[in-house]
Amino acid sequence: MVVSTTESELLPQPERAEIRVENVLQALGDPVRLLIVRALAAARSGIACGEIMLPVSPSTRTHHLRVLREAGVISVQCAGTRKLSTLRRADLDALYPGLLAGVLAAEH
Amino acid sequence: MVVSTTESELLPQPERAEIRVENVLQALGDPVRLLIVRALAAARSGIACGEIMLPVSPSTRTHHLRVLREAGVISVQCAGTRKLSTLRRADLDALYPGLLAGVLAAEH
Repeated sequence: MVVSTTESELLPQPERAEIRVENVLQALGDPVRLLIVRALAAARSGIACGEIMLPVSPSTRTHHLRVLREAGVISVQCAGTRKLSTLRRADLDALYPGLLAGVLAAEH
Repeated sequence: MVVSTTESELLPQPERAEIRVENVLQALGDPVRLLIVRALAAARSGIACGEIMLPVSPSTRTHHLRVLREAGVISVQCAGTRKLSTLRRADLDALYPGLLAGVLAAEH
């Protein structure tokens, strides 16, 4: 799926019907990826992932973002040189009602 | 934790406060382990895991049960030569309200 302007492009991601619960759970089951998901859940709009404080190298950060995107947990929009990530909350809540809320409620 | 009779013993498992969401998500993020969790969720009481139809070898089955138990997702009670597994629904619902329901609601 590609949005209408040529300068803003959504990186490849599964459609809602293609998302699989085991992939979502695997993607969420990592401390660093949970940090990313919590940061995106707290944001009102897409955020540049470089802005999220993470205790990992840039290449590891890129890896984790790809895992989340390919599982259907986040969308990544390229706008010029920036990449803005958003949580696919509507898709996840529709497919697995309560799952994301339960994960975000976790204290440990 | 060991129950009071000598012939019925709970295999080692984390206390509720020791359960970590990333471990639960990792444990759930596997198709075979999801089959086990769905079967246990549908059972009224503990079931012998040999009774769950799984497309894996006995040793792989044992591995998956251990991952689930060590993550805090299931309890396994040894009663004589039988091992009865139960879902730790009360613990998971208390820690991560909605998570388990969302996973079980998944059609794919």
